[in-house]
Amino acid sequence: MPLMADSRNTAVARVRDLIAQTDGGALTSFLEPLHPADIAEVLDALDQEEKVLILRHLGTEKAAEVLTEVDEHSGQALLALLSNTDVVSLLGEMPSDDAVDIITALPPEKSKQVDALLPSAERQKIHDLMEFEEDTAGGIMEIEKVAVRESATVQDAIDLVRTLADEIENLEEVYVVDRDDRLVGEIPVLDLLFNKPSEKVTDVMKDNVITVPVEMDQEEVAALFGKYDEFVLPVVDDTGKLVGRITVDDIIDVLEEEASEDIARIVGTQEDEIGERSPIKISKARLPWLVIAMFGQLINALIMNHYAVSIETFITLVFFIPLVIGTAGGTGIQAAVVVVREIALGQIVVTQIGRRVFREIQVTLMNGLVLGVILFGIVYVWLGDVGLGLLLLTTLVSVSLTSALMGTVIPLVLNRTRIDPAIATGPFITVLSDIIGLVIYLAYATFYLS
Amino acid sequence: MPLMADSRNTAVARVRDLIAQTDGGALTSFLEPLHPADIAEVLDALDQEEKVLILRHLGTEKAAEVLTEVDEHSGQALLALLSNTDVVSLLGEMPSDDAVDIITALPPEKSKQVDALLPSAERQKIHDLMEFEEDTAGGIMEIEKVAVRESATVQDAIDLVRTLADEIENLEEVYVVDRDDRLVGEIPVLDLLFNKPSEKVTDVMKDNVITVPVEMDQEEVAALFGKYDEFVLPVVDDTGKLVGRITVDDIIDVLEEEASEDIARIVGTQEDEIGERSPIKISKARLPWLVIAMFGQLINALIMNHYAVSIETFITLVFFIPLVIGTAGGTGIQAAVVVVREIALGQIVVTQIGRRVFREIQVTLMNGLVLGVILFGIVYVWLGDVGLGLLLLTTLVSVSLTSALMGTVIPLVLNRTRIDPAIATGPFITVLSDIIGLVIYLAYATFYLS
Repeated sequence: MPLMADSRNTAVARVRDLIAQTDGGALTSFLEPLHPADIAEVLDALDQEEKVLILRHLGTEKAAEVLTEVDEHSGQALLALLSNTDVVSLLGEMPSDDAVDIITALPPEKSKQVDALLPSAERQKIHDLMEFEEDTAGGIMEIEKVAVRESATVQDAIDLVRTLADEIENLEEVYVVDRDDRLVGEIPVLDLLFNKPSEKVTDVMKDNVITVPVEMDQEEVAALFGKYDEFVLPVVDDTGKLVGRITVDDIIDVLEEEASEDIARIVGTQEDEIGERSPIKISKARLPWLVIAMFGQLINALIMNHYAVSIETFITLVFFIPLVIGTAGGTGIQAAVVVVREIALGQIVVTQIGRRVFREIQVTLMNGLVLGVILFGIVYVWLGDVGLGLLLLTTLVSVSLTSALMGTVIPLVLNRTRIDPAIATGPFITVLSDIIGLVIYLAYATFYLS
Repeated sequence: MPLMADSRNTAVARVRDLIAQTDGGALTSFLEPLHPADIAEVLDALDQEEKVLILRHLGTEKAAEVLTEVDEHSGQALLALLSNTDVVSLLGEMPSDDAVDIITALPPEKSKQVDALLPSAERQKIHDLMEFEEDTAGGIMEIEKVAVRESATVQDAIDLVRTLADEIENLEEVYVVDRDDRLVGEIPVLDLLFNKPSEKVTDVMKDNVITVPVEMDQEEVAALFGKYDEFVLPVVDDTGKLVGRITVDDIIDVLEEEASEDIARIVGTQEDEIGERSPIKISKARLPWLVIAMFGQLINALIMNHYAVSIETFITLVFFIPLVIGTAGGTGIQAAVVVVREIALGQIVVTQIGRRVFREIQVTLMNGLVLGVILFGIVYVWLGDVGLGLLLLTTLVSVSLTSALMGTVIPLVLNRTRIDPAIATGPFITVLSDIIGLVIYLAYATFYLS
């Protein structure tokens, strides 16, 4: 049964109790039936020495499973407290992709020492995996897989599955490869149950296999899983050689990471910040965008300086500056974020860009008019000034239109140039909308005053 | 092989060709080997009559698979063109959850007619599923599952799997239930391969099963899949009765939907807008927040009216209003979005809220100081005014601090009250930050002028 919040607190209290009683046997038998992910949650609530103690009371295999489940920041701290030989034996029990994540997260000195202690076959596997970019199929795949040659029988495949079942999690398919390890087909494990053991694997395999190129970006890999509803996909290099496989649980992590990244960008910070504990690092993540935004707003100061005469003549103009630039920024970012999300989900077809922009113009004209008419009413009632009301109405319509157009067109153009359109969802588009909004307002106002 | 963008265009051209030649046989044999998801992509590029023609040239089973893959908006249009009997036979080939999605998407009149034509067993299944809220486990589960009684043997389970394998996709586990259909254990299909056919299922099953309560929110269900790395989970009602199962491919859809929802909220629109084609509906999604934001900014107009004397005395003050409120809004939303994302990912522990707020204060003081010092330098060089420089420096530090505190505390408080904290990431927090920022600036300025 999964641990819910209440039972987690009870579990933490019970573990603390058993630690205080130094009752190792009872501790082991309390932890044994728990899911590694639940033990990881209990660990998160304990302090460092307690964590190490718990890991020591679990078997190496279970401890390794728990370690792949704890969150990255506390995992790093925990590993630093373990001896190099402990780390090596834990790595031996992990799927290759988790082992790589752990070894790259160690402090450089310790990472080197652990690396030197690894059995050479495992070191080779880990080094091979470390070659791949973190954000590609190679970076998230695991090397472990079940593959048989074309000459094998169904019985051979069953025997191999039996041998490897303990070692490989989420075994869904047996892959069939040729003499050069090129993937030629796959057999779902369920089909091993339904075919005669004497049949040749090539006679029962599916040869129309969906494969992932090893250098494919992880976001595209996630889209592939989403599109084909597969749970495990084989990864091949550019010669078609089977090099690993990706399981859908890693895709869930990719989707969460990518969503965090998109959300972080909208407000001008970095995905790394989420869960980060060092104030200096958080500050560094946010500051660049704040500085850029400030310089953008300094341009607004220059613009107002330029229009100082109009402003001094008619101070009431100033009262509505936050409203005008707020509407401009808000409209621009709404348009940009929706377009970027549609691009990310593959919902924008190149041939329909004209239609997409036209739709945005319709929406914005409606919204700008509604806002403008409401504001006209308020200004008329508050200040009794029809001229100012009309000025604000035309300003809001114009400003909404330019901001929304910018918010729509900039991501679409960036997408064509292979620059990630998500950068247009940041403070960049807000500030740009602010500036253009202010210029329009003060230009109209000056014309109106003259 | 999956279709890439290029081969999709080629496929679309080829299909159009075959339609023009009215060569039905060639069309069928061209489409047959393609994955349903790829056919769906080809369909998206065709016009309505062509789509119907394609569906007619696929077998009912394949056509049903394709229909579950096309995007919601074009699927609805397509179904409207099919006869009621066609729709009924397509529904018969679909997993129950997809059938429900389709029947609820039909126009009410057609939906009623189709419902009346359904075989009664199937109608019952669909009506049962429609009882559940759309965003809960019950709303995303499928009813199809493989379950055996406690008295069954491994051979019984194998026979049942063999019978149902065609009908049920992604068969991962055989469930074991008692006489009242309560779930008592599960057997991974792989284990059917490794155990003697004569063994009792109760002797080989795993009885520590992770289950999903049928009324659990889909976001929590996704978190459960993420935590336990499972591909399929059984769904039980509050008596422990097995009612369905959820597969991880549906969880991927949930994650994309929830990410879209979070992103839409940050900019004050609705998730439904993404992919929506009606300008009126898009306008309705965005307008409420724009109006609220406008009223917020009207408060700013009142504040400036209140401080009109200070403003008129020293017009240069006005130049920096966009900068001050821009920084306030930006800082507030950065803090809010990060906190909300941490809550969503389960990274905020209740006992550490004090520490979390303290960290935010440290970050903000640093950022406020850096921005303030840069601005001081610029104002000094530009206007040679030390007093205004100092005024802006203290304003930026104060404004950053209050905005970031609000951005951190409001989502945390909302989370306690069971209101979705994500509403604090919308224009709400930006406008609130703007207002407080402006008050601080003008209050300081008035004090400074006096």
